Amino acid sequence: MVTVVAVVVLLSLCFVPILGEQKLRFGRNGEFKILQVADMHFANGKTTPCENVLPSQVATCSDLNTTAFLSRIISAEKPNLIVFTGDNIYGSDATDAAKSLNAAFAPAIASNIPWVVVLGNHDQESTLSREGIMKHIVTLNNTLSQVNPSNQTRIIDGFGNYNLEIGGVKGSGFENKSVLNLYLLDSGDYSTVPSIPGYGWIKPSQQMWFQSTSAKLQEEYMSKAAATAEDGPAPGLAYFHIPLPEYAILESTNLTGVKLEPAGISSASVNSGFFTTMKAAGDVKAVFTGHDHLNDFCGKVMDIQLCYSGGFGYHAYGKAGWDRRARVVVATLERTQNQGGWGNVDSIKTWKRLDDGNLTAIDAQLLWTKKRIPTA
Amino acid sequence: MVTVVAVVVLLSLCFVPILGEQKLRFGRNGEFKILQVADMHFANGKTTPCENVLPSQVATCSDLNTTAFLSRIISAEKPNLIVFTGDNIYGSDATDAAKSLNAAFAPAIASNIPWVVVLGNHDQESTLSREGIMKHIVTLNNTLSQVNPSNQTRIIDGFGNYNLEIGGVKGSGFENKSVLNLYLLDSGDYSTVPSIPGYGWIKPSQQMWFQSTSAKLQEEYMSKAAATAEDGPAPGLAYFHIPLPEYAILESTNLTGVKLEPAGISSASVNSGFFTTMKAAGDVKAVFTGHDHLNDFCGKVMDIQLCYSGGFGYHAYGKAGWDRRARVVVATLERTQNQGGWGNVDSIKTWKRLDDGNLTAIDAQLLWTKKRIPTA
Repeated sequence: MVTVVAVVVLLSLCFVPILGEQKLRFGRNGEFKILQVADMHFANGKTTPCENVLPSQVATCSDLNTTAFLSRIISAEKPNLIVFTGDNIYGSDATDAAKSLNAAFAPAIASNIPWVVVLGNHDQESTLSREGIMKHIVTLNNTLSQVNPSNQTRIIDGFGNYNLEIGGVKGSGFENKSVLNLYLLDSGDYSTVPSIPGYGWIKPSQQMWFQSTSAKLQEEYMSKAAATAEDGPAPGLAYFHIPLPEYAILESTNLTGVKLEPAGISSASVNSGFFTTMKAAGDVKAVFTGHDHLNDFCGKVMDIQLCYSGGFGYHAYGKAGWDRRARVVVATLERTQNQGGWGNVDSIKTWKRLDDGNLTAIDAQLLWTKKRIPTA
Repeated sequence: MVTVVAVVVLLSLCFVPILGEQKLRFGRNGEFKILQVADMHFANGKTTPCENVLPSQVATCSDLNTTAFLSRIISAEKPNLIVFTGDNIYGSDATDAAKSLNAAFAPAIASNIPWVVVLGNHDQESTLSREGIMKHIVTLNNTLSQVNPSNQTRIIDGFGNYNLEIGGVKGSGFENKSVLNLYLLDSGDYSTVPSIPGYGWIKPSQQMWFQSTSAKLQEEYMSKAAATAEDGPAPGLAYFHIPLPEYAILESTNLTGVKLEPAGISSASVNSGFFTTMKAAGDVKAVFTGHDHLNDFCGKVMDIQLCYSGGFGYHAYGKAGWDRRARVVVATLERTQNQGGWGNVDSIKTWKRLDDGNLTAIDAQLLWTKKRIPTA
């Protein structure tokens, strides 16, 4: 009986049903941890071979290595949320998209941890369209994914554009506020404009949705008690698949992590302005993409951290001997003397975990910290 | 009596009142000519000195030289439309914004030729706000300027965002179609985001308006008789003040005209994606800006011509001995054997006129020509 109560209490820290929706919330340890899984490239499971692994690994390696890595890292990190940032399945090798999706996300579903998905450029290459994939995903257990924003009256480009609000600690002054905002967007697959080569991009309709969502969240946050103007808006994090052209501004010398892709940054061939829209909105502190499996760095452009996760999946191109990896992000609240002991977000840190024997953590760094006005 | 009839007929070629609005239309010569006037920097008239002119010019030079140039070039070119692309007045030196605007546009008003305005970064520095300036301008004679789109139900950023439709020749198969579309936009003045330095940019709300307007125009154009799919949509031209970051892609070797600005291209410090939005829409063939007085080139990026006009006004920085100038654009219809003798737009040409004794025309070039599928 005690155990049951404890489990219920424990679950309620992360899951608070409000108006029929599960709401994410910081735990009583003042932390919220997000695991990013980029480019699983899942196909058909144990019959699907691995790419770019060591000769000694080839014989026994398959999609199941991806599954095992996902199970292990979830157990090790116990995140509050898992974000899959696209190319979740490698569509052209997946015989049945729904089955591949089910298998790819199985460790997340089994973990009872909330998980969400955005689409990459390969997800739709099997038996489901991009819309079909998102419509399938939202039926799976424990996902907070959405096909598109429920409050959107106008047509929005793509599928899998939505936001997540992470509430402050229950009993603290931030209990009824979102103190950390996640924006998930569909960065498309390929250009549909014949005269523009290459990958897709985030369209004006999506940017308008982001802009109005960010404005609404900032207004709500600043208008209620316990938020102070000097702290600024609640920090935001953006997750999507294809890196922005601004990633290419970063020099290798300013990076934590590496830029091993021979082509550098495989963004769209045009700049659709989403970096500017985020910068103008003011709340997004870091962007997390996948797509370029051999880049795993973070670097700052105009005070926004632009991060890769590095390739996760074994049926995805990689580099033999360079471990598959994932990115962890932890937001930590400020300790306060009153109001339930916890304030708003104080810092956001990140590190990566390698799929070696020890799940070695590398490249730990501070992504953002709240600027305080020094008191005399 | 014959003269009166001739004048009425002549006027009706350019002005066709439809639903209470004047509609622009190609003349019976199959041409539509646009005069672009960039950066007049008008202040208080004859008491306002000139900048960067030859020592011999200083004593007698004032804003009236700008007025005289405007009168002369209108008489010489007899355009169908005059487009003023911002910094029309130099606000900080203009004692009374309305009076400066009236004086600056006086030659256009007197010409009885339709004229339109977009705002630069200096227009609002006198006694009127940006909104106030556009609201004043729309009360002046012969202007087709609009404060903002009349069909816009949502809020749009800036003032002076609107489009103009140029109808085909009366009696031709394109009589009831817009065969040339002009998009006029407010590129802002300065960044209002503290962490983004520099000039303004075209916002997502404006890009959504452009996108939906372009889509509607293309649908209307292609759905009616006499337009063929192989010709593509009617060409569009975009006019605004501040150049796009994509102008900086152009190397000096690929230009018609010159890049004399020491700072190169003074675009916004961020890319807001309007080039991508135009390219994706597909109809815009050329962009015309001002702002950088010593750049007067056109160059092609991904098949869109990016053009400057070069500085027009004498109370604006320039280069002594380097003549003030303006850009002329002429769209020419295709000659046909039937349907009234004229088809849709066949080519778009441009040249510049210098304010020397002869209004010398320089840098004539073909900007765009309709691609025809060769017939066997």
